[in-house]
Amino acid sequence: MTAPLHEARPPGAGARLPDTQQGMRRRNLARVMHTVSAEGPLSRAGVASRIGLTRAAVSTLVDELVRSGLLEELGPERPGRVGRPGSALAVSGRGPAGIGAEVGVDHLAVCAVDLRGAVRARAVRHHANRGRSPEPVIEELTGLVREVIAEVEREGLWPAGLTVAVPGLVARDGRTVVRAPNLDWNATDLGALLPTGFPLTVDNEANLGALAELWLGDGTPPDFLHVSAEIGIGAAVVVDGRLLRGTRGFAGELGHVPVHPDGPECACGGRGCLEQYAGEEAVLRAAGVEAGEDRVGLLAERAAQGDRDVRRALDGAGTALGIALTGAVNLLDPEIVVLGGALSGLAPWLLPSLETELARRTAGPACAVSVSRLGPEGPLLGAAHSVVRAVLDDPGAVAERG
Amino acid sequence: MTAPLHEARPPGAGARLPDTQQGMRRRNLARVMHTVSAEGPLSRAGVASRIGLTRAAVSTLVDELVRSGLLEELGPERPGRVGRPGSALAVSGRGPAGIGAEVGVDHLAVCAVDLRGAVRARAVRHHANRGRSPEPVIEELTGLVREVIAEVEREGLWPAGLTVAVPGLVARDGRTVVRAPNLDWNATDLGALLPTGFPLTVDNEANLGALAELWLGDGTPPDFLHVSAEIGIGAAVVVDGRLLRGTRGFAGELGHVPVHPDGPECACGGRGCLEQYAGEEAVLRAAGVEAGEDRVGLLAERAAQGDRDVRRALDGAGTALGIALTGAVNLLDPEIVVLGGALSGLAPWLLPSLETELARRTAGPACAVSVSRLGPEGPLLGAAHSVVRAVLDDPGAVAERG
Repeated sequence: MTAPLHEARPPGAGARLPDTQQGMRRRNLARVMHTVSAEGPLSRAGVASRIGLTRAAVSTLVDELVRSGLLEELGPERPGRVGRPGSALAVSGRGPAGIGAEVGVDHLAVCAVDLRGAVRARAVRHHANRGRSPEPVIEELTGLVREVIAEVEREGLWPAGLTVAVPGLVARDGRTVVRAPNLDWNATDLGALLPTGFPLTVDNEANLGALAELWLGDGTPPDFLHVSAEIGIGAAVVVDGRLLRGTRGFAGELGHVPVHPDGPECACGGRGCLEQYAGEEAVLRAAGVEAGEDRVGLLAERAAQGDRDVRRALDGAGTALGIALTGAVNLLDPEIVVLGGALSGLAPWLLPSLETELARRTAGPACAVSVSRLGPEGPLLGAAHSVVRAVLDDPGAVAERG
Repeated sequence: MTAPLHEARPPGAGARLPDTQQGMRRRNLARVMHTVSAEGPLSRAGVASRIGLTRAAVSTLVDELVRSGLLEELGPERPGRVGRPGSALAVSGRGPAGIGAEVGVDHLAVCAVDLRGAVRARAVRHHANRGRSPEPVIEELTGLVREVIAEVEREGLWPAGLTVAVPGLVARDGRTVVRAPNLDWNATDLGALLPTGFPLTVDNEANLGALAELWLGDGTPPDFLHVSAEIGIGAAVVVDGRLLRGTRGFAGELGHVPVHPDGPECACGGRGCLEQYAGEEAVLRAAGVEAGEDRVGLLAERAAQGDRDVRRALDGAGTALGIALTGAVNLLDPEIVVLGGALSGLAPWLLPSLETELARRTAGPACAVSVSRLGPEGPLLGAAHSVVRAVLDDPGAVAERG
């Protein structure tokens, strides 16, 4: 076991806030943070009018947030006015940072995001991770995390938490990779391999990609179905701005929805699952393309050049996606479907057949499909931002630790 | 427009409680109600220790709930003890009642449930409603509602609200039946046809059946998929004890999940939807049984007698259900699947093929399937209990109205 990545801080009281005076204070701290984050810079009076508390109450809350380094005062505003000048408040660009990490099949990546949402440091290493055992992969990842933390500490930031995106099923404990078939990892407790000294969360890459879309997407509504792919096909269901995780944490396995129930056998135990028609391996096979380094890039390049086999393969994948999504849309009634991850790069050739299939299977107007701007960056950004969100949602916990 | 069903009361402040002293008081009133409802009779001290407030604070809340008729004092308990005897509190069997109504294809039903969950009155009328226009159906339903209210008013109860279950898609306004194909109703505003003078909600029968299962089922967990049927096949997704409604309110349309994407055309615009294999019409046709009054009862009777055609038809329906549910389970990861409504009566002949299909398409342990004890009673009970729940969740709103 390696040494902790960072000096331990006493854990915060967590996000479950009891209905007491103390809980109300913590919730009001969060309202101040979210208001300044969304609308700042703002004066104390501006915050007070927006959240409906008195200026005196807001001042007490703001003082606490400034003391713990979450807000900063930009100095007096409108100095020409009569009366005591208000000082404009902004979310701090120092203080806590969210660390995001990604274990991909072909790469490892780490980044740090400050409370303002800016990426402040980033490290990537390309490496075929398929079949490597978890220990050396996590050791390498730990090295990258240390690098990124060292870099942002020089700028006055400190790590508020680390979230790791993995291409596999993660238990609801937020630590254990139950099954990551494309890494060949099973029942791997990343919490034991990654001693951080600050909160660690492990999550499925499709989940984090969907959260990134929710938080950073261009007008993404709070109810959507996010479909992404690395090797397998993953999806995530967001309802009222919250991720639907499922009882075991395994929700979103769109890749194993039966498309042709008598079709080819799938590793999941089923037959004719979506992955047999639209998964990366199936598409490469149908396109007659050899598996190499940047497979999605290669498919996109060939499709753009007009390669008929590749276009036919992507057309077939789009049809299969359309059938599986018809079922999902009927079950979930999302506002839109978003294609993210690797699928976003192939969207021009997947969308026509996908949308045709959705439309012809729907009596009313078909559910709209959009393409994520974040693309393959989604899971890593979602990981870092999930830590930042946790700080904004309960700044009192950080104030106690800070 | 008929006269209101009941003298109007000023509307309550609703369930969205702001984070103020007043909001906190309202939430604490709800905690007292839920505690007494789940664990009563209890003394004030017993309530205080369970919810972690002082006895004085609890006494103030209890006095308010007793005054507004939601709690009642059963008289002093343990009179032999030293000190001032505590009076045991129970949820009132008088006061507000939830009125539930159901518009079925073959019947209308209304019931009243008190805050203790007891059914206090009930009225049913058998009548083929298919193709009747909404006005006479709702007029007849209104008569039944009046009967039931008159009956419970004689026992000191008053209607806190009415929820109406319909076999169709209901808009998120909770009033408008967007489409009920088996009644042939489209874009029908039941709010305009049913002036009540107290809160009215219209909801899909499958949703209310699922809520009944959640509230009244035998150890039903908070994450499950409820599958039911009257003529069509409906489903409802419950996550963390909350119904997933979808953006337009149309979630749960399991009947239109594609099972064989090249199969027969469906009225929804799709092909090979689950309803084409497991809907009542499809099963009757496959079984060679004429559509009559009690179709499900007839199928069950014939199946029990060993009728081969009926058994084969139900076996095929079970297989189709298993395929559609494999997709749903992969997407949602529920703890269990519950067969409710008319399907519960056919479960002995649907379950074997349904469970085989689920198991053979799943690598790990398959999702468990259980059969609802409530059966066809679910939607009506769910409707009445949804009103009762609203009172327990925000008793302060009733206290203001009462």
